Amino acid sequence: MKPSIPKGTRDFGPAEMQKREYIFNIIKTNFKLFGYMPLETPSMENITTLTGKYGEEGDQLIFKILNSRIHESNKKEELKKEFDLSLEKSRNSELLTEKALRYDLTVPFARYVVMNHHSLTYPFKRYQIQPVWRADKPQKGRYREFYQCDADVIGSNSLINELELLAMMDKSFAELNIPVLIKFNNRKVLSGIAEVLNASDKIIDITVAIDKLDKIGKEGVVKELQEKGINETAIKQLEPLIDLSGSNTDKVTVLKTFLVNSEIGKKGIEEIEFLLNHLSTIAIKHVTVELDITLARGLNYYTGTIFEAKANAGTFTPSILGGGRYDDLTGIFGLKGLSGVGISFGIDRIYDVMHELNLFPESINKVSTTKLLLTNFGESEQVHCIGLAAKLRANGINTEIYPDNAKMKKQFEYADKKQIPFVAVIGSNEIANNTVMLKNMTSGAQEEVNFEALLIRMKGVKD
Amino acid sequence: MKPSIPKGTRDFGPAEMQKREYIFNIIKTNFKLFGYMPLETPSMENITTLTGKYGEEGDQLIFKILNSRIHESNKKEELKKEFDLSLEKSRNSELLTEKALRYDLTVPFARYVVMNHHSLTYPFKRYQIQPVWRADKPQKGRYREFYQCDADVIGSNSLINELELLAMMDKSFAELNIPVLIKFNNRKVLSGIAEVLNASDKIIDITVAIDKLDKIGKEGVVKELQEKGINETAIKQLEPLIDLSGSNTDKVTVLKTFLVNSEIGKKGIEEIEFLLNHLSTIAIKHVTVELDITLARGLNYYTGTIFEAKANAGTFTPSILGGGRYDDLTGIFGLKGLSGVGISFGIDRIYDVMHELNLFPESINKVSTTKLLLTNFGESEQVHCIGLAAKLRANGINTEIYPDNAKMKKQFEYADKKQIPFVAVIGSNEIANNTVMLKNMTSGAQEEVNFEALLIRMKGVKD
Repeated sequence: MKPSIPKGTRDFGPAEMQKREYIFNIIKTNFKLFGYMPLETPSMENITTLTGKYGEEGDQLIFKILNSRIHESNKKEELKKEFDLSLEKSRNSELLTEKALRYDLTVPFARYVVMNHHSLTYPFKRYQIQPVWRADKPQKGRYREFYQCDADVIGSNSLINELELLAMMDKSFAELNIPVLIKFNNRKVLSGIAEVLNASDKIIDITVAIDKLDKIGKEGVVKELQEKGINETAIKQLEPLIDLSGSNTDKVTVLKTFLVNSEIGKKGIEEIEFLLNHLSTIAIKHVTVELDITLARGLNYYTGTIFEAKANAGTFTPSILGGGRYDDLTGIFGLKGLSGVGISFGIDRIYDVMHELNLFPESINKVSTTKLLLTNFGESEQVHCIGLAAKLRANGINTEIYPDNAKMKKQFEYADKKQIPFVAVIGSNEIANNTVMLKNMTSGAQEEVNFEALLIRMKGVKD
Repeated sequence: MKPSIPKGTRDFGPAEMQKREYIFNIIKTNFKLFGYMPLETPSMENITTLTGKYGEEGDQLIFKILNSRIHESNKKEELKKEFDLSLEKSRNSELLTEKALRYDLTVPFARYVVMNHHSLTYPFKRYQIQPVWRADKPQKGRYREFYQCDADVIGSNSLINELELLAMMDKSFAELNIPVLIKFNNRKVLSGIAEVLNASDKIIDITVAIDKLDKIGKEGVVKELQEKGINETAIKQLEPLIDLSGSNTDKVTVLKTFLVNSEIGKKGIEEIEFLLNHLSTIAIKHVTVELDITLARGLNYYTGTIFEAKANAGTFTPSILGGGRYDDLTGIFGLKGLSGVGISFGIDRIYDVMHELNLFPESINKVSTTKLLLTNFGESEQVHCIGLAAKLRANGINTEIYPDNAKMKKQFEYADKKQIPFVAVIGSNEIANNTVMLKNMTSGAQEEVNFEALLIRMKGVKD
């Protein structure tokens, strides 16, 4: 039977891995440049750590792991009894499964902070790059296993953290060469709007409706608001927000009037203004930053600034980054009063965007990182090649020796298929001369060179 | 309730992560220097891919994942019915679980090769660095989640591959600075010994018994052989192997006599001699390489050379690397005739050895990779600091700004606890002079420097 892999999962072969590592390296380098420190948490968490943190729908998407003592038992009746018992005890079948695969990196981070609270130095800045698992229906751009790349700082209220995150996004997307629109908003502004309208349970309905302005027009928005049960007075009040347009400053002016009687709303505007006033300080060079009051982000732990980034070109519409400030993330594990803010790069989607827009640099658009293949003409030549390979590798040159004494054609085909840029042909003449016949696989040019010349040419090949 | 993590799993905080990444980077760099290309496979495999590949004991240690459609159902009775049905159908409860966490990287690699056979270029050299999961009883040095670092070349019979692997181990362990003894053997020699003794089902018992010579003496070995049902003639015949000692060449001489009538045994000796003759060719510099006929390695897919490495110092005895040649790994998935050879670095154990022997370089023995902290004296100073930080980061200097306008003492404590080597104090005087007051946190020395001088000093701090 031909083997296969589970739905919604993927193998990453060498060509994809080079490109993925290219993305990871840029993001990781920037995380470190901004002072974030690495953390890894286990793939498995106790189910009690995860459940109740992602809403009812999220709970359904957590992959649970069968207890080992159950699958160690071979006796059918025992299994059944244990299973029955577990069903009696709990709908979560805790005797059957106590562990689950992590669903995101945020909850494990909060769990880590609470467990290590007394040994951490605050503000604690950590980054984390690991896969997460979701039992979602697989479809294009949605996988059951995918990587998250998170950076969070916890234990500081300062908006400097938001500014630094914006600077880090700008630098990272500039280096990845992706045109990006960063939308931001503030949950306090949304709370303020709800307060003014006296409709705090309807704020998501309101933002969703206003967000459709481009698609369904103002009449459509009003109709949808009516359908969602927003009363006519409130809809009338909302008009300036439905019509909201212009520059970030224009929008702030309208919001200030709208929220003049809401304390929380005014606090939100103050935070937004701080960020807007300092966009020039952090000297945003690459991304576009836009205030968007329809941005809400689903997760209910956000309490201040929220971010979302999308590619500003191509046909790819899902967001490639999300994040925001949470005032009480660790509260779910009993540790109150730690405010934090963080972002999460969606590496799989960033890959898809870069693939569509052809943004990977030429030098990594290849299968192999090997720079030079040494040919194999038989046992005595091999001995020479092994010594030569050692000297090249000691100089940092990725080098292969073709392992078998195969026909020249086959050895060249190997280099060609692996996109190895140079082949060194080494026969008895070259050994006698202490040279190699160096063939450029792109141009086809050949030249006989000594070791020093070979090394110079190899150091000139881009990584 | 204070949160916890599952037994046998670990969080890796910043200090551990630096050290782990130091190890990963050395191994990965060497994998690339020798022409291995990266591969990643999904954490989850279909259960049918994994079962039956690791022996009966191994099968028991595979972590199974509950099907999502089961935990999506909330109805107790439905769950029970489905579970009963699954038990009827199969002892593996395939309706309950179809997916499992990978147990090693070798079987997923074989599965990948079979699935992608027609698009791969052979010999196919891949490396893979990913976690694996085993439902083992957790104990010191044995975890339920741990990383493997594998390099394999498949599709070549040449012993050059074994030589290159030895060269790669030597270079890697030299760079890690771990004193290492690499034991090697050949499965064909073991088959030959079994053939000579006419005891092919007892070869593991025999190697296990001989291996105890140092501990229980020759009499003890003979007693154990008797207990295992080896007859007296065979034990008499085995004497030269029980007494085997001296140099690698001495051992080969004895083996040649012992195996003179075994074709497979003689083939094994030939392979061993090829490797020994070329140890000088690959110029082994760091590790000790020793032929050990008691080395058998449990996995039954090995058919030629086998390797095992242990730290040659300290109290840590488990192996830190294993590997060998397999003539038919992909045969389990229906693709015959592909010979391969590979090794697996045990990163968690390498970490433990390096920790015990204090082998990590001083520069990575710290919590943070930040080189410089900029102080925060309030809003106008912040603006200046943000600009300065951007310039430093553009030059590759890992830089933090203390996010809050806290007391100086607190800001210095932060740098101290995170082991950040330099703090730049930036007040109104420094801003007016366009300088910073640079404090060396180790020596306590302070000096006022301009940007150029600051940059030179920061570039001098080791990564």
